[in-house]
Amino acid sequence: MNNAILIEHFLATRKQSIALSSPLEIEDFGLQAAAFSSPPKWHLAHTSWFFETFILKPFGNDFQVLNPQYEVLFNSYYNGIGEQFPRPHRGLLSRPTVEEVFAYRDHIDNAMVDLLSDTSHPEWVAIASRCRLGIEHEKQHQELFLTDIKYSLSMNPLYPAYHDEAPTSTSEAVDLNWITFEAGLVNIGIDALGIGEKEECFSFDNESPKHQVYVNRFAIANRLVTNAEYQAFIADGGYQRPELWLADGWTAIQTQCWEKPLYWIDRDGEELVFTLSGLRPRNPQDAVCHLSGYEAHAYALWAGARLPTEAEWEYAAQSPGEALIQLYDTCWQWTSSAYGPYPGFEPAEGAIGEYNGKFMCNQSVLRGGSSASASQHLRPTYRNFFYPQERWQFSGIRLAKYL
Amino acid sequence: MNNAILIEHFLATRKQSIALSSPLEIEDFGLQAAAFSSPPKWHLAHTSWFFETFILKPFGNDFQVLNPQYEVLFNSYYNGIGEQFPRPHRGLLSRPTVEEVFAYRDHIDNAMVDLLSDTSHPEWVAIASRCRLGIEHEKQHQELFLTDIKYSLSMNPLYPAYHDEAPTSTSEAVDLNWITFEAGLVNIGIDALGIGEKEECFSFDNESPKHQVYVNRFAIANRLVTNAEYQAFIADGGYQRPELWLADGWTAIQTQCWEKPLYWIDRDGEELVFTLSGLRPRNPQDAVCHLSGYEAHAYALWAGARLPTEAEWEYAAQSPGEALIQLYDTCWQWTSSAYGPYPGFEPAEGAIGEYNGKFMCNQSVLRGGSSASASQHLRPTYRNFFYPQERWQFSGIRLAKYL
Amino acid sequence: MNNAILIEHFLATRKQSIALSSPLEIEDFGLQAAAFSSPPKWHLAHTSWFFETFILKPFGNDFQVLNPQYEVLFNSYYNGIGEQFPRPHRGLLSRPTVEEVFAYRDHIDNAMVDLLSDTSHPEWVAIASRCRLGIEHEKQHQELFLTDIKYSLSMNPLYPAYHDEAPTSTSEAVDLNWITFEAGLVNIGIDALGIGEKEECFSFDNESPKHQVYVNRFAIANRLVTNAEYQAFIADGGYQRPELWLADGWTAIQTQCWEKPLYWIDRDGEELVFTLSGLRPRNPQDAVCHLSGYEAHAYALWAGARLPTEAEWEYAAQSPGEALIQLYDTCWQWTSSAYGPYPGFEPAEGAIGEYNGKFMCNQSVLRGGSSASASQHLRPTYRNFFYPQERWQFSGIRLAKYL
Amino acid sequence: MNNAILIEHFLATRKQSIALSSPLEIEDFGLQAAAFSSPPKWHLAHTSWFFETFILKPFGNDFQVLNPQYEVLFNSYYNGIGEQFPRPHRGLLSRPTVEEVFAYRDHIDNAMVDLLSDTSHPEWVAIASRCRLGIEHEKQHQELFLTDIKYSLSMNPLYPAYHDEAPTSTSEAVDLNWITFEAGLVNIGIDALGIGEKEECFSFDNESPKHQVYVNRFAIANRLVTNAEYQAFIADGGYQRPELWLADGWTAIQTQCWEKPLYWIDRDGEELVFTLSGLRPRNPQDAVCHLSGYEAHAYALWAGARLPTEAEWEYAAQSPGEALIQLYDTCWQWTSSAYGPYPGFEPAEGAIGEYNGKFMCNQSVLRGGSSASASQHLRPTYRNFFYPQERWQFSGIRLAKYL
Repeated sequence: MNNAILIEHFLATRKQSIALSSPLEIEDFGLQAAAFSSPPKWHLAHTSWFFETFILKPFGNDFQVLNPQYEVLFNSYYNGIGEQFPRPHRGLLSRPTVEEVFAYRDHIDNAMVDLLSDTSHPEWVAIASRCRLGIEHEKQHQELFLTDIKYSLSMNPLYPAYHDEAPTSTSEAVDLNWITFEAGLVNIGIDALGIGEKEECFSFDNESPKHQVYVNRFAIANRLVTNAEYQAFIADGGYQRPELWLADGWTAIQTQCWEKPLYWIDRDGEELVFTLSGLRPRNPQDAVCHLSGYEAHAYALWAGARLPTEAEWEYAAQSPGEALIQLYDTCWQWTSSAYGPYPGFEPAEGAIGEYNGKFMCNQSVLRGGSSASASQHLRPTYRNFFYPQERWQFSGIRLAKYL
Repeated sequence: MNNAILIEHFLATRKQSIALSSPLEIEDFGLQAAAFSSPPKWHLAHTSWFFETFILKPFGNDFQVLNPQYEVLFNSYYNGIGEQFPRPHRGLLSRPTVEEVFAYRDHIDNAMVDLLSDTSHPEWVAIASRCRLGIEHEKQHQELFLTDIKYSLSMNPLYPAYHDEAPTSTSEAVDLNWITFEAGLVNIGIDALGIGEKEECFSFDNESPKHQVYVNRFAIANRLVTNAEYQAFIADGGYQRPELWLADGWTAIQTQCWEKPLYWIDRDGEELVFTLSGLRPRNPQDAVCHLSGYEAHAYALWAGARLPTEAEWEYAAQSPGEALIQLYDTCWQWTSSAYGPYPGFEPAEGAIGEYNGKFMCNQSVLRGGSSASASQHLRPTYRNFFYPQERWQFSGIRLAKYL
Repeated sequence: MNNAILIEHFLATRKQSIALSSPLEIEDFGLQAAAFSSPPKWHLAHTSWFFETFILKPFGNDFQVLNPQYEVLFNSYYNGIGEQFPRPHRGLLSRPTVEEVFAYRDHIDNAMVDLLSDTSHPEWVAIASRCRLGIEHEKQHQELFLTDIKYSLSMNPLYPAYHDEAPTSTSEAVDLNWITFEAGLVNIGIDALGIGEKEECFSFDNESPKHQVYVNRFAIANRLVTNAEYQAFIADGGYQRPELWLADGWTAIQTQCWEKPLYWIDRDGEELVFTLSGLRPRNPQDAVCHLSGYEAHAYALWAGARLPTEAEWEYAAQSPGEALIQLYDTCWQWTSSAYGPYPGFEPAEGAIGEYNGKFMCNQSVLRGGSSASASQHLRPTYRNFFYPQERWQFSGIRLAKYL
Repeated sequence: MNNAILIEHFLATRKQSIALSSPLEIEDFGLQAAAFSSPPKWHLAHTSWFFETFILKPFGNDFQVLNPQYEVLFNSYYNGIGEQFPRPHRGLLSRPTVEEVFAYRDHIDNAMVDLLSDTSHPEWVAIASRCRLGIEHEKQHQELFLTDIKYSLSMNPLYPAYHDEAPTSTSEAVDLNWITFEAGLVNIGIDALGIGEKEECFSFDNESPKHQVYVNRFAIANRLVTNAEYQAFIADGGYQRPELWLADGWTAIQTQCWEKPLYWIDRDGEELVFTLSGLRPRNPQDAVCHLSGYEAHAYALWAGARLPTEAEWEYAAQSPGEALIQLYDTCWQWTSSAYGPYPGFEPAEGAIGEYNGKFMCNQSVLRGGSSASASQHLRPTYRNFFYPQERWQFSGIRLAKYL
């Protein structure tokens, strides 16, 4: 990747974050409805902090820090960098103001463009490589920006819309078909390439190394489970039948009083769903979304199926000619795989090594992508991961079964 | 009170709330750092809700409700009115925006002035009486506005100042003197008067009825305890000596890890205090402030004294010629009295009866007033009340003892 | 009090504790169902610890400590003595065994009798005085022994009976009458006398000093509220009407899901109540028992009355010729008074001063006595105190009102 | 397996549970120090309940239920059977007494022997098969009996010994060697056989079906990590270095204040460890034990190694001629594998299907066995599983690495 393309990619990504915040009122920028979510303003600042911390501070020429306290305020979880402002309190940071955060972004953008333009910099390869990572990092936060603001706005009984675009809806679901794969050793994951080797091949460290996995014969559904299908599970007493649930899932639905997906609202006989476009009628043909991994598991059991492993999912997604739809553009798909290291996985040296590796415990892998994902960000080997009790992501179900 | 004076008083009070919010950034209006505090915007809306709910809805002519959902959103704790938006989540209401809340205030102000101007209204006496209550209610919220925003801003490591006025400071504390009172039956409280009977005599229902209390011979301090005196208590191991503490107080300081007043910050050898004007050097001669009732009790015991009862405090404050200072303008003063009903106390009929009566349990009475109190709002019979573990009010110590 | 009588009183009290434990299985001795209650075995050990700590260790001649670790294990809350084994974990002390605790009791009894017999001891007055306190302390724990084991056994779906005595029951409640008292200054409390001055006059420090209180004209009910009357309150929606409840009480009944007194069990159409004699039919004429202070308050409001102040209660109980029944033998009676120090109250020097004084915050006074109280333990000036949310004591309602 | 052998095996196992309880005092039988552990008495009752519920009730001829309430009291987690007495409150069941529980065991034993003797029973194969499961189930509870009583006794500052046997200790640890395995497809798991097919081959459903896994080249340590080696990790600041920890592990050690293994006690310069034989000097050569999965992971990272996957562990343990020691007799060995279903796993029909399957989420696999495991209970394919934060099992570390 030459530096002009990299700068263009960098600026386009940075601009996209600003575009995402344009529908918001200033009052919305500080909203944080739960410890697991972050305010819009914080996402805008933290993504800048990432470039500052991992590129501009170590490699910048005469880089001027705008405010030394931002190092702590906008550090997400990098213990190697130092202390962090407590995550559950991010919503209490009314200052810096929105305007000041935008100024911080400009400051970082200018410094980054300067640095990226300096191709004679002795560390240019490291800079470019980390910049590439920072870009993908920002794209991840663009999706979190949307999931988090959706969650925060949903707490308000006025149900404000994030924007006024009409939600895309499926007029008619395609038939559910099972696509069959034979048993065998398959290649999973990807070997990370250095900057310049092959630009289109960015991948995160958790997708490496490429390795072999033996999969048994299996079938996977061509499409995602719909609202109508999930409604049938509810109507059949799905949430009252312990035999369908993992033990921790059963505990979760009891203590949380869950009896339907997050954002489903039944009011005065109307079946509604809260969306980024506000409260809307629920379309039975749309893919069911905002489920926990527990609900996905229970539904699959009820339907006489199971969730795919991540290897099965990736193998299917890599297979040419298969009629799989809704892979990347609808909802993330829960797998039955716990998030762990691939054989031979090595996290990067230093604080940046905390990016992925330290989360490889207690979380489940989701594959694919969602309507909130940044375009050109996804690929068959991409591994998303969340705790099985989490529902605020755009997460749904693709079924699998043994044959 | 004639209606022109009432209207003037109403408008001046409403204007004062707006004035208090003028130093804020829009981002600050939604801050809520704890369930016991409320966002600035919420105070502005709730005080309007009070006039709407208790005057305009029952008595208004053709009153138009701006948004029917505000009834729930801005109800503080009146179960008689109906459901309330959960208190700990008030900070999640990014909408209505600040601008919309200001418009709501204007709407209420206009309707109120119209109604108050209609002196031929068959319920004018009730309207005027409730308006008087609404005005005092708003003055109470003006103090809470300041205590709450102070608390919220203190969570931010940037320690933003609420305004840039220099804090008032005491150059030299006067000598501590003990003022003696003889034993006897004294009158406590005040009999509420109706509107028009005697305008200057507004009082809350919890100050009634006037009744007799037998007090023993006692002495009370002419002034409040200073930062320097409280520092001596700390230096003497005050926070490590269980014999000085109430059992619940000892538990509180262990579990909260308290070892100094709220807002005292010792950093790099500097003794600082967070104020509405930001982080400032701590003046040893200033009255110590932001203490829990437990700390006030422990300090008093350490000093060989005790806290006054509320009857002693009121009796002293009513006594002409006594050289008591810092009664109303510095810090509220914890008493040893639990907050309860006076003999013969009767709360008002209906939801408005929830104003004071239902809190008469588990709280302690504070007397006097503070630098954050609205002027012309206070009097010797005024009873403020908070839980003994609360510290975010401007609360300090006036000592008493038996003789 | 001469030493023979004191020894007799001491031994009778110690024997009574053993008698209380005779119906128990060994398995019952370790039961602790909540942090606020203690296992039977712990009560037996702690009351011995009290004599050991406050008499035998400071004054004993050649007193041999049986196990030095008991100092920590059986210290309830005396910070002045040192560390305490965590209260919520008392049920985890399977050792010392019941047999070992009985041996500990014997060891203490023998040493105490030796010491009390030594009338030439230079500290005999202090010893006798503290022994008197230790006896009353043990009587208090005898009541707690019963309330705690009742609570623990109630957790078992088998509803085991503590003993097989038939519960005493009221065949017919007497009519409710109001007894009137005129306003005036009354004497409240008692001045503590030293040992030997007047033996029958033991009192706790919190009952001193005797002082004057002005009471308004009032009436008090001749008897306690019955199950049938309380059932009428429930039937009238008492638990669903927020206007009847203190704010903290309303929160308590919501979060605890209370809708009837503790130990009322309605099963298969039967109205039952759990008693020390197991599960029994509920007698409508019995006094309602095991209520929180919040429920007592709400009932009183619903009944058009209120709870008495502790001064009113004591004044009425002291008045000769008044037809008050159920004063000491049925249920403790919640008052509207917060537990606080009487004017001029001074706790004892040293750790023993923690007996009462440090609890004078957040608790409510109960007056009278209950069917579980030790005989000869009670008097008009006796002040019991519990948090208003507590229900596991034998606590009921005597109404009062202004006139 | 013929029925005489089965009866013998059944009775020997039942007798062994009684033998385990012989060192206990009656007071110990009710101890429950945490929700995750159970009282000794409960284990004795629940294992009987298992035979009653899954064999005697469905298949018994004229089986008489001793107490119908035991169905709820001693149900561990089988939602398919019905309600369960709340797990955290098992320690509150002082009744049935120990004697009554022993009588319950006798009742079940007699009924089981009768039933097993009836070889003409039409369901004899199902009975024998479930009896076999019940025997293994009871052996699992025998280990839990020991881990739970150890945990409960450790809460007592007297540190009572469970028994007076001297603990086995390693005089000198063997050298740490790495045993190498080549990459390839390996067989993992076992296909369950029916009763009679091959008696010695009992396995749990979670070990099936046998399937192929591709493993990369790896090396595994011949022995477990020792106390001395773990001490070096601590001395090197292991608990203060976030880069060594999984994110959830770092949170765990912060919130739990862990800085050494459970049961390590450093007191007055002595390095001690709590054992079933009471408090003992810590032997540096013994395998380190009672670690969470987080600590095992952090240690491995610090040591430049990692935890084995369960497939690697099983493959190594199955390999003839390899010099692996401490496989089954010392501590369970944490693996890096999350507990999940093998490809094609099918839980049994009905409530007994809840035995294993519903726990396949959020837990980690441990392999091997411990000094507390029942003899003849273990095998290379056995899968134990606990939450990574749990430390009260006999759990240690065997290192692995890639080559």
